[in-house]
Amino acid sequence: MHIDLNADLGETTAGNPVADDAAMLEMVSSANVATGFHAGDPHSIAGTLKNAAAHGVALGAHVAYNDPASFGRRFIDYAPAELADETLYQIGALDALARVHGMRVRYVKPHGALYNTIVHHETHAKAVIDGIKAFSPDLAVMLLPGGVAVDIAEKAGLRVIREAFADRGYNPDGTLVSRREPGAVMHDPEAVAKRVLQVASTGSVTAIDGTEVKVQAESVCVHGDSPGSVELTRSVVHKLADEGIRIEAVL
Amino acid sequence: MHIDLNADLGETTAGNPVADDAAMLEMVSSANVATGFHAGDPHSIAGTLKNAAAHGVALGAHVAYNDPASFGRRFIDYAPAELADETLYQIGALDALARVHGMRVRYVKPHGALYNTIVHHETHAKAVIDGIKAFSPDLAVMLLPGGVAVDIAEKAGLRVIREAFADRGYNPDGTLVSRREPGAVMHDPEAVAKRVLQVASTGSVTAIDGTEVKVQAESVCVHGDSPGSVELTRSVVHKLADEGIRIEAVL
Amino acid sequence: MHIDLNADLGETTAGNPVADDAAMLEMVSSANVATGFHAGDPHSIAGTLKNAAAHGVALGAHVAYNDPASFGRRFIDYAPAELADETLYQIGALDALARVHGMRVRYVKPHGALYNTIVHHETHAKAVIDGIKAFSPDLAVMLLPGGVAVDIAEKAGLRVIREAFADRGYNPDGTLVSRREPGAVMHDPEAVAKRVLQVASTGSVTAIDGTEVKVQAESVCVHGDSPGSVELTRSVVHKLADEGIRIEAVL
Amino acid sequence: MHIDLNADLGETTAGNPVADDAAMLEMVSSANVATGFHAGDPHSIAGTLKNAAAHGVALGAHVAYNDPASFGRRFIDYAPAELADETLYQIGALDALARVHGMRVRYVKPHGALYNTIVHHETHAKAVIDGIKAFSPDLAVMLLPGGVAVDIAEKAGLRVIREAFADRGYNPDGTLVSRREPGAVMHDPEAVAKRVLQVASTGSVTAIDGTEVKVQAESVCVHGDSPGSVELTRSVVHKLADEGIRIEAVL
Repeated sequence: MHIDLNADLGETTAGNPVADDAAMLEMVSSANVATGFHAGDPHSIAGTLKNAAAHGVALGAHVAYNDPASFGRRFIDYAPAELADETLYQIGALDALARVHGMRVRYVKPHGALYNTIVHHETHAKAVIDGIKAFSPDLAVMLLPGGVAVDIAEKAGLRVIREAFADRGYNPDGTLVSRREPGAVMHDPEAVAKRVLQVASTGSVTAIDGTEVKVQAESVCVHGDSPGSVELTRSVVHKLADEGIRIEAVL
Repeated sequence: MHIDLNADLGETTAGNPVADDAAMLEMVSSANVATGFHAGDPHSIAGTLKNAAAHGVALGAHVAYNDPASFGRRFIDYAPAELADETLYQIGALDALARVHGMRVRYVKPHGALYNTIVHHETHAKAVIDGIKAFSPDLAVMLLPGGVAVDIAEKAGLRVIREAFADRGYNPDGTLVSRREPGAVMHDPEAVAKRVLQVASTGSVTAIDGTEVKVQAESVCVHGDSPGSVELTRSVVHKLADEGIRIEAVL
Repeated sequence: MHIDLNADLGETTAGNPVADDAAMLEMVSSANVATGFHAGDPHSIAGTLKNAAAHGVALGAHVAYNDPASFGRRFIDYAPAELADETLYQIGALDALARVHGMRVRYVKPHGALYNTIVHHETHAKAVIDGIKAFSPDLAVMLLPGGVAVDIAEKAGLRVIREAFADRGYNPDGTLVSRREPGAVMHDPEAVAKRVLQVASTGSVTAIDGTEVKVQAESVCVHGDSPGSVELTRSVVHKLADEGIRIEAVL
Repeated sequence: MHIDLNADLGETTAGNPVADDAAMLEMVSSANVATGFHAGDPHSIAGTLKNAAAHGVALGAHVAYNDPASFGRRFIDYAPAELADETLYQIGALDALARVHGMRVRYVKPHGALYNTIVHHETHAKAVIDGIKAFSPDLAVMLLPGGVAVDIAEKAGLRVIREAFADRGYNPDGTLVSRREPGAVMHDPEAVAKRVLQVASTGSVTAIDGTEVKVQAESVCVHGDSPGSVELTRSVVHKLADEGIRIEAVL
């Protein structure tokens, strides 16, 4: 049995690190690397890519609305053609930085507001998928299960990697518990490890009311943006090792 | 006999055009297309690329310091590794946008302050060349003849395209007459056409004191950023046709 | 009889002018000057302010979403407190540049997507009004008549300047004809002049179906962002002179 | 006896804090608050200002080259008039945000590359001083002792606050030991506290070779951008209390 662990990396901006990229690259199998549109700059991104190559992880382009001021956390009402071209631009830029280290972008994971928007916003979803496919129809796309972007991507012939979140509470319908409500974030290492094991063995998650939700997840997103989150990931990794579950990229 | 005409295009920012890209693409053989670092945005750049592909012009990446506030006109004291990675990022982004239209970046032309800086600034010159070569050692680089960047590029094994300016005055040593001095810019269509013909036939230019300067130029830069400059270019193009000189990309 | 003519100025970015500020400042009584958030930079803005002071026009801060990439034309899903603080920041910055020339900001006119959004978006409307009032409760605000921002501003005790557009078609309900529909923009100098005279004498406009709409406008927005629009404004100004209507700022 | 402690605050960008502003505001008497040009955004800055007002600290505008990509750490070859207008813009914006909390900008401290550049670069020094004076001739300016900016500011009639650094090594000529050389940064709490006491009592610092350098410092810069630096500052504050030295703003 195996599972893919993915993390958001390459977000160091102006010399100020957001996550502990080095620690996370010791543990994950897939790295969603920023492209400079929500965070990161070409040189800091290149440093993360070099390290990612040394660890043999799969590379994802963490594309975003062009909004470093909010870390890509605000919806922006792009025209679809603008969004498609910006998606393509970001993948091309990251791929060029990666090729130096013998890597290629293998998948795309939208970031922040863009990730959440294309769960329901059809024209933005289609624009992102168009941008990805324009770079290469062989790229995969990592998405929240159940959104319109999943359907659009699959109809476009793209490989979709459904992901689950290691430390987020789920509603019975498979959506995430809002951060404004109790149960949104799980802090107990045991519970988080259990979640990851469940995804690895069944692709499902258990919602806050106990319902088992079949999200068909192939990858689990873990975080490295605080000392606590790195430790939490480490405990998950140990638990997976104890259970004999390999950490392995989907692609 | 033939000559390459190149122009700076793709600089429309936020919907406000700087040059008449459509008119220029009817005339030039090489397009230096902005990458978003001094001007342009992915969608407007994509529009210029589509048009450039339709006209079969050679594509150059017009890389710049990341400074849209000044249109890339200010020196910025980058660390060399930052500049190399930003160069690579820009080429990769533009190449991805271009591939959709069946084009590839064939050469790189530094823009504005970066263009002028690497005539004498060795570490920035080397950084730009490193970034270009990291993308592909098959890329050419378009430069002002006589600068340190030319030597560094040739030592690195890159093909250098030396360029002359259609409408700038030259000093006897091959440098351009400063814009603060008389004779910096030529406005007479006859004189400009004569300049281009001279470059086409000899690779040389005549300086303001009458000296012939052997700049070994293979390409001539023309401008399209004002109604007058488009007309000026048109008159040059007609003159070249009259003389039976083909307009043809170097690469 | 008198009327206020206002125009969007100070939008030169990176040395590339958008409008003919000098020509417009000869004609208008109120200048909506960019703050750098959708266009303009402190130095080009300062140049427009100096000229505005010389012409004795009333100064408005043309506040915007922080989005130069789209010229402020896209909705951005700001948190209200962010928008309020950015509004305040912009007014303070512009006022500091203006005081050097003996002027103060007298009113605020939201720009582009922000202008249109606060016609219906209550939290953004309230945020903008909060930001204005935080700078000074004596500032006026220039708005499209009939939107929620008008009500919120008046409840907050701010002086509202309702404006009409010289060259836009109106629907019978007082909204503007969408630019995607016929009749959106008027190009006939006679019709435009007639519109301005009508506003000056009655505060009303005539909709595309002939209905008279009482918009209570005290100011008319004219444009200077193309040669044609400057000429159009000039013909309006002559017509107003012929009719003995003074062009005069509201404040 | 008393001494001013100043710290760089308000640098939280896109929700990612750089320093522990709350902890530092418990200790310092002067806050150099970012203006958004090297770091910070209006809303995060406003939060720091509110807290600064609650602690009664003196407010300085931490003006910078407009270069968030490098955290303001790169020299940019501005035209002087651009730099003067950007300085004025920044002070005006910050002052507007501060007035809401009953505070005014009392002094200006240039940041990063700008701080270091104007030690020797006369035209940039003059431009910054021009921008400050344009806002108000009553503003003070906080500078490194011994640079050309000090002379230019004093000739312009501005009050200069000379500062020393709590944890930096000094050369015998009063310049800072380069970060590339040994002795550049002091980590020993005893040595740092001794430095601050020395400045408080004599205005002088002791260089790495034991020479006493009369820098006439009235303020000492402390840091809050790492957990260790907050602790270091805390130990200094305790030491000052033990010695009966009050921490008090210059202005």
